Amino acid sequence: MVSNKQVVLRDYAEGSPKDSDMEVITNNTIIALKVPGGSDAVLVKNLYLSCDPYMGNLMHKFDAPTGFTSYTPGSVITGYGVCKVMDSGHPNFNKGDLVWGTTGWEEYSLITKPEDLFKIDHTDVPLSYYTGILGMPGMTAHYGFYEKCAPKEGEYVFVSAAAGAVGQLVGQFAKLMGCYVVGSAGSQEKVDKLKEKLGFDAAFNYKEEHDLNAALKRCFPEGIDIYFDNVGGKTLDAVLLNMRNNGRIALCGMVSQYTLEQPEGVKNLMNVVTKRVRMEGFVVFDYYPFYSKFVEKVLPHIREGKISYVEDIVEGLESGPSTLAGLFSGRNIGKQVVTVAHD
Amino acid sequence: MVSNKQVVLRDYAEGSPKDSDMEVITNNTIIALKVPGGSDAVLVKNLYLSCDPYMGNLMHKFDAPTGFTSYTPGSVITGYGVCKVMDSGHPNFNKGDLVWGTTGWEEYSLITKPEDLFKIDHTDVPLSYYTGILGMPGMTAHYGFYEKCAPKEGEYVFVSAAAGAVGQLVGQFAKLMGCYVVGSAGSQEKVDKLKEKLGFDAAFNYKEEHDLNAALKRCFPEGIDIYFDNVGGKTLDAVLLNMRNNGRIALCGMVSQYTLEQPEGVKNLMNVVTKRVRMEGFVVFDYYPFYSKFVEKVLPHIREGKISYVEDIVEGLESGPSTLAGLFSGRNIGKQVVTVAHD
Repeated sequence: MVSNKQVVLRDYAEGSPKDSDMEVITNNTIIALKVPGGSDAVLVKNLYLSCDPYMGNLMHKFDAPTGFTSYTPGSVITGYGVCKVMDSGHPNFNKGDLVWGTTGWEEYSLITKPEDLFKIDHTDVPLSYYTGILGMPGMTAHYGFYEKCAPKEGEYVFVSAAAGAVGQLVGQFAKLMGCYVVGSAGSQEKVDKLKEKLGFDAAFNYKEEHDLNAALKRCFPEGIDIYFDNVGGKTLDAVLLNMRNNGRIALCGMVSQYTLEQPEGVKNLMNVVTKRVRMEGFVVFDYYPFYSKFVEKVLPHIREGKISYVEDIVEGLESGPSTLAGLFSGRNIGKQVVTVAHD
Repeated sequence: MVSNKQVVLRDYAEGSPKDSDMEVITNNTIIALKVPGGSDAVLVKNLYLSCDPYMGNLMHKFDAPTGFTSYTPGSVITGYGVCKVMDSGHPNFNKGDLVWGTTGWEEYSLITKPEDLFKIDHTDVPLSYYTGILGMPGMTAHYGFYEKCAPKEGEYVFVSAAAGAVGQLVGQFAKLMGCYVVGSAGSQEKVDKLKEKLGFDAAFNYKEEHDLNAALKRCFPEGIDIYFDNVGGKTLDAVLLNMRNNGRIALCGMVSQYTLEQPEGVKNLMNVVTKRVRMEGFVVFDYYPFYSKFVEKVLPHIREGKISYVEDIVEGLESGPSTLAGLFSGRNIGKQVVTVAHD
């Protein structure tokens, strides 16, 4: 039996999630480092926890039938993480295995549906990558871009939230395809990173542009073939004015909308008709059965240095609440990770 | 030389097009019933003129790069029509040929790009059908439904403006596929027509529903697989709340929006993400090269009585302005046609 530090939702967030909506509980909980007898659960030690935009949604009370369920006030929050198996009642998992999947924001978690975990077979890359480029965001970028955007060489590609966990990969995949790629992000530092480290052809800070339509016209005088949308709202509306005939828009998420009382209205949908645009939403879960194929495709790019991955790693579960809250003000550059333990 | 009655745009419409935005000119114009020597134009007698929603758009001044051009005040308005060739300078057309395509709202028109006309080869159906089921609206319904909606037997299909030129066909195509079909329209008479004559499983009058979301939930307790959108705006927004996973929305046009100063904002696009919806715009022109294939498919259905087509035919070019204006208040039931001459 050991004590088990936890990050708990204090109460539902109002507007943008704040640090104070969560609390770190250090003394109240203890956990046995053993799986209960007869159970097929696994007991894991959490190493890296992933901060993802969808978690902001779960911090709000909602009842839409989206397949998601809000967090429960007073309970530990959950999210993707990289974990080490300490004890297993499941035939597929052994003590010492490294896995990634949904876990608790705590030092140790008892995972009662271990069949949803993914095994980590390759450890020659940073383990934290399994919260990002080799985890859920990586699959999101890969399948969203290749399957939904149907890219062709030479096409004009725009990515919003381009310095984030998903956007930075979409941009790099697009460059590997021979596309022209522009990203938007929320600070000069991020814009510099996109151009200097991640190979984007151009980038702009949307917070400095009073007219997004004009910014897009400047970056895409010929218009946009592909838009990978991570933000929704005003950016999507401005993109619609700049789409080319037969353009494609992958709707990945709408982080600009999650913390609003009412979503913003998108007014320019008539352009979807006149420009024959295909707009398609997708959910990464649907692609999880193809995880090993995905790893086979992306791992060589990482090993050969064809794709880089920018992470923003913060040490210690105590930093969890402020780090997660920071995601919603765009404080992070690259994939936001919280380290709980290194091994 | 004969006199040539014309319908001319008096000035750009403000808001919904009105009768008084147009005028009928009876004495001022004369036309030679001969093609100018050396020209490859054709001179046609207009028989049936088509009233289509896009024409409301062209009556407004706009400069968006949509591929369309507004009508010019003082000039004859144009639209689809069924015509008889009186004289031809073009090798593909002969005197006496029946054709359909873009023509002027006048008794006789000189058509300078006759290669855009379609020849009418089958006259065992009403000639007016070539403004509707066998013309542009028929192709719109056919390709929009079969190509963009990718329907499967047993799916739940919703059609807006369902009693219109396009909607009534989409509903009947969907019934032929074995789908469950609900339509919305703007009067009890239209609703009755949908259920009693056109085979819709259910229909509702959107003007009598104060809560479109509730109306859709009542008609589709299991949700909507396919939405064929002719109206945009609030109806589209309510549909988004009721889509099923992997649903498809064909964006055909947005007639509810054409006469607004500012389009309404669509707020529920996040449902496109969570429900993995594909929303696709299309323009019927892209399918014109397949016209003869289309006729081969649809003509047998008409001949065998498997598809009916409701038309609202008004006599006389003098009635043109009020008939066209009536389209925008939904006065017509079925395809709105103006007869200029019977042969």
